[in-house]
Amino acid sequence: MDKLLNDLLAIVGPSGVLLGDDVSQRSVDWFTGAPCRAKAIVRPRSTEQLSSVMAVCYQADQPVVTHGGMTGIVHGGVASPDEIVVSLELMNQIEEIDPVGSTIQVQAGVTLQRVQEAAQEIDMQFPLDLGARGSCTIGGNIATNAGGIRVIRYGMMRQQVLGLEAVLSDGTVVSSLNKMLKNNAGYDLKQLFIGSEGTLGIVTRAVLRLQPHMPSEQTALVAVPSFDALTQLLNLVSRELANSLSAFEALWNNHYKLMTTESGKHAPVLADDSPFYAIIETLGLDEAEDAERFSQVLQKALEADLITDAVLASSQAQRQSIWAIREDIEALVSELKPMFSYDVSLPIPSMEAYVDILEENLKTQWPQAGKMVVFGHLGDGNLHIMITVRDDRPDSRRQVEQLVYSPLKAFGGSISAEHGIGLEKKDYLSVSRTSEEIALMKRLKTALDPKCLLNPGKVIALD
Amino acid sequence: MDKLLNDLLAIVGPSGVLLGDDVSQRSVDWFTGAPCRAKAIVRPRSTEQLSSVMAVCYQADQPVVTHGGMTGIVHGGVASPDEIVVSLELMNQIEEIDPVGSTIQVQAGVTLQRVQEAAQEIDMQFPLDLGARGSCTIGGNIATNAGGIRVIRYGMMRQQVLGLEAVLSDGTVVSSLNKMLKNNAGYDLKQLFIGSEGTLGIVTRAVLRLQPHMPSEQTALVAVPSFDALTQLLNLVSRELANSLSAFEALWNNHYKLMTTESGKHAPVLADDSPFYAIIETLGLDEAEDAERFSQVLQKALEADLITDAVLASSQAQRQSIWAIREDIEALVSELKPMFSYDVSLPIPSMEAYVDILEENLKTQWPQAGKMVVFGHLGDGNLHIMITVRDDRPDSRRQVEQLVYSPLKAFGGSISAEHGIGLEKKDYLSVSRTSEEIALMKRLKTALDPKCLLNPGKVIALD
Repeated sequence: MDKLLNDLLAIVGPSGVLLGDDVSQRSVDWFTGAPCRAKAIVRPRSTEQLSSVMAVCYQADQPVVTHGGMTGIVHGGVASPDEIVVSLELMNQIEEIDPVGSTIQVQAGVTLQRVQEAAQEIDMQFPLDLGARGSCTIGGNIATNAGGIRVIRYGMMRQQVLGLEAVLSDGTVVSSLNKMLKNNAGYDLKQLFIGSEGTLGIVTRAVLRLQPHMPSEQTALVAVPSFDALTQLLNLVSRELANSLSAFEALWNNHYKLMTTESGKHAPVLADDSPFYAIIETLGLDEAEDAERFSQVLQKALEADLITDAVLASSQAQRQSIWAIREDIEALVSELKPMFSYDVSLPIPSMEAYVDILEENLKTQWPQAGKMVVFGHLGDGNLHIMITVRDDRPDSRRQVEQLVYSPLKAFGGSISAEHGIGLEKKDYLSVSRTSEEIALMKRLKTALDPKCLLNPGKVIALD
Repeated sequence: MDKLLNDLLAIVGPSGVLLGDDVSQRSVDWFTGAPCRAKAIVRPRSTEQLSSVMAVCYQADQPVVTHGGMTGIVHGGVASPDEIVVSLELMNQIEEIDPVGSTIQVQAGVTLQRVQEAAQEIDMQFPLDLGARGSCTIGGNIATNAGGIRVIRYGMMRQQVLGLEAVLSDGTVVSSLNKMLKNNAGYDLKQLFIGSEGTLGIVTRAVLRLQPHMPSEQTALVAVPSFDALTQLLNLVSRELANSLSAFEALWNNHYKLMTTESGKHAPVLADDSPFYAIIETLGLDEAEDAERFSQVLQKALEADLITDAVLASSQAQRQSIWAIREDIEALVSELKPMFSYDVSLPIPSMEAYVDILEENLKTQWPQAGKMVVFGHLGDGNLHIMITVRDDRPDSRRQVEQLVYSPLKAFGGSISAEHGIGLEKKDYLSVSRTSEEIALMKRLKTALDPKCLLNPGKVIALD
C-alpha cells in the first residue's frame, strides 16, 4: 500500500477507508449503474479528520472527488483510478435544532428527508423538496444548489442556507456557521461553495433556515388547452394565490400520456387528450378558507377558458396519486431506456417555441426512434426533457445534446436549471455563459484550488 | 490637466467629468456632511464607457471609489485626493419590464423608489424597502446587499437579483443578465458582487425579480411587557400569520419614548411606559379576511399576556404615523447628536442579554452623557443601536465601538447585519469572522482586483 493510503488510514482508521471490491461495488451513476473506479473511498467522521485528509492529499498532489448521496445525474461523482473519493456518509448528524431561531445545524452527510423529519418533529418544515429526498444529502443539495418542486415559494437550496463550513483543497477549514438571517460583515463566502459542485471546497456542515409548518395543503391536476393558456394560468394563480402558491408543475401531453395511458403505470386522473396539464399546489394555514379560495380561483380559470378540466385532491391518497404522475422518474426511465435526460431553463415566453423547434428537429433526425417527453417547474422557467432515440451510442448522445442545447443561446436559456454541470454538460457551458464569465470562473477556481485537486475536470476545464 | 484626466474626458465627454468645486460640494457622509475630496468624479453613461474608464484607470494604477445614492453610513464612499470617484448617476434607465416573466432590468444608478413605482404601474411590487428609498440606488442596494423592513418575508437584496452585469478593475465586462429563477450553469458569479461593496467589481446593470402586488396591508403597534414575551409574540405571528407576515419591528422603550413623549416629534400612539413595542405588518390579498385573522391573532396574543395593548391602523394616515416612529432617523440624529450608529445581528435568544450588558457598560463609562436607543428588525435578528456620549472625538468613538462590538463574539453575532463594513467597521471584522474567513476574503480580493484599485482599503485591508 502506498504512503498516501497509509497516511489516510492513520487519520480515519481502517473502517474509514474502502478499497477494492468495496469501491467497485458502488455505483457513480444511478441511471446506468456504472461502478466507482476510484483508488479508494475515504470516509471522514469529522471536519477535523477531513481537514487532515485534505492536507495529506494536498501534499501528495492527490485529486479528490466528493460523494454525497449520489443521486445527481450529470456525472459529478465519476472518479478515475488515480482519484480518491471522499464520502461524507459518516458525517450525518443533526447537531442542533432551534425552534426560537428557526434554524437547524447539520453535518453534510445527513439526508434531506431526515432534516425534513426533524423539522416536522418541532412543528416546522424544511421546505426544499425533491424526489430523491430519501437518498440525497444536504451536502449534495448545497454543492449542487438543488431546486425541486417548491422553488417558486421558498427558493432553491441557496436560499435555505444561513451558515456553512467547508474544507478547502489544502485542508483549511472555513467555518461560517452563521445563524442569522442577516450578516453583511464582509464577503458572503458561503455563496462560493453553494452550487459549485465540490470544485472550490468540500461542504462539511451547514446551518439551515426552517419555515413555519403549513397544515393546509391544496393540490389540483388541471387540463390546459394551450401554452398561452398555461402562462395565463400561471399568472392568474401567482396573483390570486400569491400568499400560498407553492408549486406549479407543467406536464406536456407527451409526458402525461406516457405516464398514464401509454405505459399503464398511473391511472389517468383526467382524460389524456389535453395539450398540457398542470399540477397546482398551495400551502396554507386554514384548510376550509384555503380550499374555498383554491376552488374559486380554479373556477375563475375554468370560466376564462384557461383550463378545460380539473381534479382537486380530496385525500392524501389522491394527492399522492397526482404527484406520482410527476415524480415517477423510474417509470420514465423504463419506458424510454436508453434515455437521455436534460434540465434546461429559459424565459417562460420562449418555452413553447423552443420545445416546438426541438421536437421538429428530433422528428427530422430520428423519424422512427425519436421520442421526447417534457415536464417541469414552469413557474421557475425550468423544463425537464427526456429523450430517447433507442440507442445510447456516444455519437447519438452528442447529436441529441446538440439538438437540445444549440437553440438555447438564442432564447437566453441555460443548459442547467438545477442539475448542475458535472462532466456531462461541461462542453456546452459556452451556450449559457460568455467567455468573460467562464474566464472569471477559472480565475475563482485557480484562486481557491490552485493545484486543481477538487473534482478536477468537473464544471469547467482549466486547460 | 494630467494625461489620465484627458483620457477620461475623451471617453465620457466634458459633462461626464466633475472637477474642483463640483467635487467638493458633494458630501460623502450624510450624517456629517463631510465633503468629497476625490481628484475627479467620472460619470459614465453606459457600461461600455465605464469599461473604457476602468481600462484606462487600470493602466494608470488609478484607484477608484464607486458612488451610488450615497445613503450608506459606513463611509464606503469616502474618497481621498489621489482617488477618482465613479458615479453611476447617469446610468439610471429602466431598460425593460416583463409582467409575464415578473422581471425588471435596470441600470445601476436608478433609485429604489423608481423601481418600486415601475413595478406598481404593472400591478406588481418590488419588495425591497427602506427609509432611503428615494435616494438610494439599485447598484448601491446590490453592492451593500441592502436589507430593510421586509426581509422577513422577501429576503435581502441578494434574493431579488436574478441577473447582474459588472465591470472588473481592468475594464472586463462580466455580463450575466439572467432572467430565470434557476440557472445552475457553472458558478453563480453575481453572488461575488452582491454585498462586496464595490471592492470586487462595479455593478452596472441588473435583472430583478418582481413579486405579485399585495392589496391588503395590516399594520399594528403593540406594547410588549418583556423580551421573553417579545420572542414568543414573534413566534406566534410567524406561525399564525405565516403566509402574510411582512414585518416585525421591535422598539425598545428607550427608542419609543425618545421618538414620542421625550422629543415631542411623534404622537404617542400607545402609552410610553411599556418595556418593548413591536410594529407588526402583514401583506395579503383579501382585506376583510386578512383584517379578521390579524385581529384574531392579536387577540390571542393579548389573552396570552404577550401584549398589553395594541393599535391597529385603520387608515393609511394611521399606518404612516406608526411607521414614522420607526423610520424617522432624522429625529433620532437631531435628538442624539453627535450620534454613533450601529447595526448588529445576533441570535434572537441572546439579544436581551447583549443589550443589557451594553447598556450597563455605557452607564458605567458615561454615567451622565451616555444614552442609547435600540430598535430593529427583530424577525431578522437585526438590531440598530444609536448611542451618544455627547461628544464625537475619535477616542470616544473608539471606546463606544469597543462597547458595542466586543461582546458580540461570545454571542456569535455580527458587527454588520445590513449596513456593510466600509471603512467604519473594517478594524472589527475579526469580531465576526475567523482568520480563515478573512484570509479567504483577501484571496478573493486579490484574484478579482489584483492591483487593489476598487474601493481600496474598504471592507478588508490587504496589508
